[in-house]
Amino acid sequence: MQITLSLNEIIELIGSPEVKGSISGSITGIAALESAQVGDLSFLRGRKYRSLVETTKASVVIVPLDYDKSPGENQVYLWVENPSYAVGRVCSKLEQLLWPKPKPGVHSTAIVGDNCKIDPSATIGPLCVIESGVRIGAGSHLQASVFIGRECVIGTNCWLMPQTTVQTECVLKDRIRLHSGVVIGSDGFGYETIEGHHEKVPQIGNVIVESDVEIGANSTIDRARFSSTVIGEGTKIDNQVQVAHNVVVGKYCFLCGQAGISGSTTLGNYVVLAGQAGVADHLTIGDETIIAGGCSVNRNLPVKSFVKGQTALPYSLEQRINVLRKRLPELFKRVDQLEKGVDGEGISKLHPEKTSD
Amino acid sequence: MQITLSLNEIIELIGSPEVKGSISGSITGIAALESAQVGDLSFLRGRKYRSLVETTKASVVIVPLDYDKSPGENQVYLWVENPSYAVGRVCSKLEQLLWPKPKPGVHSTAIVGDNCKIDPSATIGPLCVIESGVRIGAGSHLQASVFIGRECVIGTNCWLMPQTTVQTECVLKDRIRLHSGVVIGSDGFGYETIEGHHEKVPQIGNVIVESDVEIGANSTIDRARFSSTVIGEGTKIDNQVQVAHNVVVGKYCFLCGQAGISGSTTLGNYVVLAGQAGVADHLTIGDETIIAGGCSVNRNLPVKSFVKGQTALPYSLEQRINVLRKRLPELFKRVDQLEKGVDGEGISKLHPEKTSD
Amino acid sequence: MQITLSLNEIIELIGSPEVKGSISGSITGIAALESAQVGDLSFLRGRKYRSLVETTKASVVIVPLDYDKSPGENQVYLWVENPSYAVGRVCSKLEQLLWPKPKPGVHSTAIVGDNCKIDPSATIGPLCVIESGVRIGAGSHLQASVFIGRECVIGTNCWLMPQTTVQTECVLKDRIRLHSGVVIGSDGFGYETIEGHHEKVPQIGNVIVESDVEIGANSTIDRARFSSTVIGEGTKIDNQVQVAHNVVVGKYCFLCGQAGISGSTTLGNYVVLAGQAGVADHLTIGDETIIAGGCSVNRNLPVKSFVKGQTALPYSLEQRINVLRKRLPELFKRVDQLEKGVDGEGISKLHPEKTSD
Repeated sequence: MQITLSLNEIIELIGSPEVKGSISGSITGIAALESAQVGDLSFLRGRKYRSLVETTKASVVIVPLDYDKSPGENQVYLWVENPSYAVGRVCSKLEQLLWPKPKPGVHSTAIVGDNCKIDPSATIGPLCVIESGVRIGAGSHLQASVFIGRECVIGTNCWLMPQTTVQTECVLKDRIRLHSGVVIGSDGFGYETIEGHHEKVPQIGNVIVESDVEIGANSTIDRARFSSTVIGEGTKIDNQVQVAHNVVVGKYCFLCGQAGISGSTTLGNYVVLAGQAGVADHLTIGDETIIAGGCSVNRNLPVKSFVKGQTALPYSLEQRINVLRKRLPELFKRVDQLEKGVDGEGISKLHPEKTSD
Repeated sequence: MQITLSLNEIIELIGSPEVKGSISGSITGIAALESAQVGDLSFLRGRKYRSLVETTKASVVIVPLDYDKSPGENQVYLWVENPSYAVGRVCSKLEQLLWPKPKPGVHSTAIVGDNCKIDPSATIGPLCVIESGVRIGAGSHLQASVFIGRECVIGTNCWLMPQTTVQTECVLKDRIRLHSGVVIGSDGFGYETIEGHHEKVPQIGNVIVESDVEIGANSTIDRARFSSTVIGEGTKIDNQVQVAHNVVVGKYCFLCGQAGISGSTTLGNYVVLAGQAGVADHLTIGDETIIAGGCSVNRNLPVKSFVKGQTALPYSLEQRINVLRKRLPELFKRVDQLEKGVDGEGISKLHPEKTSD
Repeated sequence: MQITLSLNEIIELIGSPEVKGSISGSITGIAALESAQVGDLSFLRGRKYRSLVETTKASVVIVPLDYDKSPGENQVYLWVENPSYAVGRVCSKLEQLLWPKPKPGVHSTAIVGDNCKIDPSATIGPLCVIESGVRIGAGSHLQASVFIGRECVIGTNCWLMPQTTVQTECVLKDRIRLHSGVVIGSDGFGYETIEGHHEKVPQIGNVIVESDVEIGANSTIDRARFSSTVIGEGTKIDNQVQVAHNVVVGKYCFLCGQAGISGSTTLGNYVVLAGQAGVADHLTIGDETIIAGGCSVNRNLPVKSFVKGQTALPYSLEQRINVLRKRLPELFKRVDQLEKGVDGEGISKLHPEKTSD
């Protein structure tokens, strides 16, 4: 996007940092240290990138408090506690330009059922379908072609992007962001096999999404069999994540891209599922557990577990086994060699039952 | 959802079970034994939960015929052959309240092309787009914002939820349920690489979904190159499952969340793919095969296979290997130790070519 | 679909091949050699299927130049350099019948924002929503219910199928095909955890999709944090693929079903990710690398790598390890046996510190 920010605007946005150096002209882009050009704002995002600060072409660099070098000519350094967060505040400002606040009101092409309560400050965009008995809170925004089923409750300041679906009787609390293609409240996957046919177990529960949750594009959250599938406050879900029926996800978890959680499993708070990780059904995963990418978990995990691999071993053990695993061809040869020694010319001769000295 | 059922209504719904005990008031919820409260209906869902029946607060508990305890005060037990199925019948009744039968007819905002035959008892909801030459059978329901491409045939009593897509010339038989975001009839993934460029191999076949199939949210079924990709009768597909072109899935299979099947593979009947399982292309998977979660299959599997792991070994072998795999660090040490014995002070001395007694 | 092609039409479509044999009647289907019937066109798709040519019932068979058998009665063989590509040309013709060229113009139910420039030869189908400032090039086709966000640029001859979403400021170059449910420009998954809460890192970059890219159903491409997520020219993406923010995919890559690429990773040209493969974040994957199905990559890979398994080992090593892995139970027994020899009756006796000769 087109960006134009003065140094003063940046300084104001990120608080009152220590400043060194000077620039002429304004900031017209944001970039990583290594790709930044003159006119760009950049930042030191971690210890190991320190040397890049000295060579970056960025006009303004946000650095941490303990950074002790000085800016070059026509360059400015800004010292703050958390550079990544500081640049985030600049981006938040820019984000408002990228996504301007929509006008409140219901678009003439939106279809709204009976007995709905839509706050006048909410925005219902074009071609949305809202079934009967739905409540939508202040400042919430249904961008376009959003479907809300009967008796759903959407809180305040939510943003539902185009082509999202929230089925009957589900509840979204406040400040929830659903990216395009998200489906909330699809049926849980439950059947009873009677005489060889799979009879559907009706799924009459719902989904409750607590406040400050963000859910990525094309992720799906199934409704519970009787009660509620729950996504805890402040949890962030990436794209194409599958959460099955009756799952309870704790607060402030991260579920990364293409992760999946099977039915009736409970996650504690601050649990991280890395990309493509899977958790089997009816399990309990303790607080602050980290499940590495592609890992399959099929047993309960205590608090602060850190697991990896197709059998979800402790991370460091899995790492060690993976090193040894590569040496299996060598190990087989060594055992062959030992046996030759033993059976051929060596030990076997010495076995009392086979040989005599 | 709000539930109010009398004990008599429940008894009627599940047949004529043996009844013991009495309650006052009606049933206002359904819950698992351990979380049920007074006023709830619950059920014994498996042998290992037997002890929970004695402590549950549920007012009505459905138990299997061989359960031999008696209800507490103000509590009722109902004996049936299959408690899980019985509670399903109660839920079916409630499901009808959750999803009331829609009024037949075509919504004024739906767009219907030329030469379509839509049964008068079908419901075409708001903002659906139906291209030309489409046939839709009795009692079928396109909820909202559903797209049906040219010349598709939709049978009777199907339910297509919001934002589903069925592309040109595909066929859905009867009583099919598509959850939101399902895509039927996207192109198969086929290219010929000519002088470094990938030329598209046109996909001019279709998809045939046989009767009584249910497909979960955001799952995708590709059209065949020439002929048909087929989903067999009574098969149930969970969310985010990918079925590639020319695949033939047998009858009464279960494809669980995020499973994937590559092109031209054939699955027998009653095959189960657990979550995130993958099957490579051009394979044949025998009837009643079970493929464990996260398992990658890249060879044909005979009838009644049960496989697990990234190399799809027999389930019990994979389990055993996974136990031994954890002991690799120990094994390497043991072999080191043996070699010390042999090469250092032990056997090596005894090798004829090296030592003499 | 219904097909009727004369032999002459086929010959014209695939150039001027050598022809032997004759048929009466026209071609009414296309099928693989083994399933073809009289009236079908078929082709020899690879060396190992040669014997099928002699037994096929197909009326017309396209064969490679070095095929030296003659057609049966009422059968025709056509010799060409690349039979698969030749049949593709026939299918391209049929594809035009399957997907007839839409009439240019904006459907009366489409909603178009201010300051859009839509080429008069483009087709904007029913119920599309186009926000302000969007440009759409000549011959492009938005089929139905497509969403295009503010300031997006869509090039020429693109085809966006129903229910696709392209969010604000993203760019699609020319001849791009998006299948249903694709989401371009969802937010990258980025947060800073401040006092236990995950603060959103705004994602103000965009997505650039270069020319001749095809993207399968329900795949998702996230926008960059500052700059652009890029899909290189001629790359083909299958269904349910996830591409995270700041990823750069090179030219002419294949990303197969359910593959995933984490943030800021760069893929070279001609890289292949097989189904369900995953690549971790901030990596560089060299040109012409092949990553096998289900493989998890968490380190940089040089040009022409060929890797497999959960730890992305060289393909042949992983294969060998998988063979040895199956023999772990045997290996453990052999070491047990060796130790018995050593500690029980054998070597241990001979250790100088334990025994004396």
